[in-house]
Amino acid sequence: LHNLIILSKNFNDYINWLVVKNLPDLVISEATASPSEINPSLPCDILLGDPTLVVEVLHLLPGLRWYQSTWAGVEVLMRPGLRRDYLMTNARGVFGPLMSEFVFGYLLFIERRILERYQDQNNHLWNGKVTGSLRNKKLGLLGVGSIGAYIASTARHFGMQVKGYTKTSSSCVDVDEYFHEGELRKFITGLDYLVNCLPGTDETKGLVDASVLSWLPAHSVLINVGRGSSLDEQAVSEALFARQIAYAILDVFETEPLPFDHSFWNTPNLYITSHTAAPSFPSELAELFLENYQSFCDQRPLKYLVDFNKGY
Amino acid sequence: LHNLIILSKNFNDYINWLVVKNLPDLVISEATASPSEINPSLPCDILLGDPTLVVEVLHLLPGLRWYQSTWAGVEVLMRPGLRRDYLMTNARGVFGPLMSEFVFGYLLFIERRILERYQDQNNHLWNGKVTGSLRNKKLGLLGVGSIGAYIASTARHFGMQVKGYTKTSSSCVDVDEYFHEGELRKFITGLDYLVNCLPGTDETKGLVDASVLSWLPAHSVLINVGRGSSLDEQAVSEALFARQIAYAILDVFETEPLPFDHSFWNTPNLYITSHTAAPSFPSELAELFLENYQSFCDQRPLKYLVDFNKGY
Repeated sequence: LHNLIILSKNFNDYINWLVVKNLPDLVISEATASPSEINPSLPCDILLGDPTLVVEVLHLLPGLRWYQSTWAGVEVLMRPGLRRDYLMTNARGVFGPLMSEFVFGYLLFIERRILERYQDQNNHLWNGKVTGSLRNKKLGLLGVGSIGAYIASTARHFGMQVKGYTKTSSSCVDVDEYFHEGELRKFITGLDYLVNCLPGTDETKGLVDASVLSWLPAHSVLINVGRGSSLDEQAVSEALFARQIAYAILDVFETEPLPFDHSFWNTPNLYITSHTAAPSFPSELAELFLENYQSFCDQRPLKYLVDFNKGY
Repeated sequence: LHNLIILSKNFNDYINWLVVKNLPDLVISEATASPSEINPSLPCDILLGDPTLVVEVLHLLPGLRWYQSTWAGVEVLMRPGLRRDYLMTNARGVFGPLMSEFVFGYLLFIERRILERYQDQNNHLWNGKVTGSLRNKKLGLLGVGSIGAYIASTARHFGMQVKGYTKTSSSCVDVDEYFHEGELRKFITGLDYLVNCLPGTDETKGLVDASVLSWLPAHSVLINVGRGSSLDEQAVSEALFARQIAYAILDVFETEPLPFDHSFWNTPNLYITSHTAAPSFPSELAELFLENYQSFCDQRPLKYLVDFNKGY
């Protein structure tokens, strides 16, 4: 018999979904969006929830053996001093297609001159300017995890060339050319689009800095789908003001929501997407939870296990 | 020995490309953007060119055996009374990926609320509204030729369900369900997106009419990548004013450019793309020409042969 606590702002969706599935040997001890309702008397060996809520109750759940995160980003649970004596799985597989929609939605928005044509339309102007295209363009992926791999497959579908920068891995078949430590400049040079998919770790902090931005061509587009910490925000803003790069699309920020007087609001050619790149889809996360639950019961390895040493 | 005439607004690109390839046994008799420079004294068994220019010189080229169109749409050459005693090939294969960029660029523009977020950004507003997604949506293709098939493959990549409406064919592996004559209403009902890829023939004229539009759900999006004639423009405008459908994206029109006082400019939720959906890429067309030239010399069948009886 397993005891599950659900701690998520979408807890109702998860309950509804799990009730339908009627999982064998699973009892829901508690389901809530409020960490204050969790207390040590609740039996719990399995936890499903949002990292920023879960971090507040970890110390109250001594029996915890497996935690399924509802998000991809679990940095908050990597803080020094927090326990690491349980299996953590995160939501990697779910976000690839959604992040890919985000990336290609904005790349096509720019290439297809969608805003410009819309503005001309408002003035009854027939804008027949030749459209740009993704075809044969060079896309660079900073980090090629499950999200990066999905973006690479979409890029391949649209006839693009894909470069990947990773610590060591080189296993994604849709990446045409891999680069590793010491080859960052070679990786960046000549890119049409730079997509940052790096997790937020100490190693990646501020990796996209003024130097990296200065190596990009003036027509290039920067898209951040990783964590804000891997980007030097000040450097990105300066690169846009100086027209060192053509556009940037930023989804996550050091401070959220962005304060009303933040300079990013007035930075030219910057699109702010207000942390909406990866919507959460409880049904898909619930599918992942189910798959992992069956593995957990059968003592098989879990999918998307987080390595506490790597931080992702 | 073969004699080629190039008649295209991009004739310079084609010359440059063909000179590099140095095709065996091929002589360029003339290359121009002006039909008036073509006269019957020019030897010509092969013609490469834009349909609206070619239609003016067809009668001057008795020796013509094969014409490679630089466009997909060749309606102008289907007019009654024009000769049909030559092989015509068109530019089908080239446009699939480009049309797919167009379709998915606009679908993502809408789903991702890109315009709304941009407008909020101008007011320093953090717009964290949940984004829409293509995932699990139903896309219907009116016509599944090479362009439709490519759009189907992109839809599949983004996790969508694909319905196809065709005269008889049902060969595209990325279409989940096919519909044929007599099943139009069943095909349309429940679609999230309707993509019209029909060629401009007598049979397809005005097919997307008030009835078809009334069967679409109120949240649906209509995208036209086919010829304007298969769409009842007045009915589309009325459906948008009446909010029978949520959005329409139209690229080609009965009258182009649209007159300044045309009602489409003020139609709500309509995006006008001013005949830019498929940019012409002379290098890719030249590749197709080369492939067909080799087949022509070897007396093998040509790729993308137009059937004068069908009109495409």
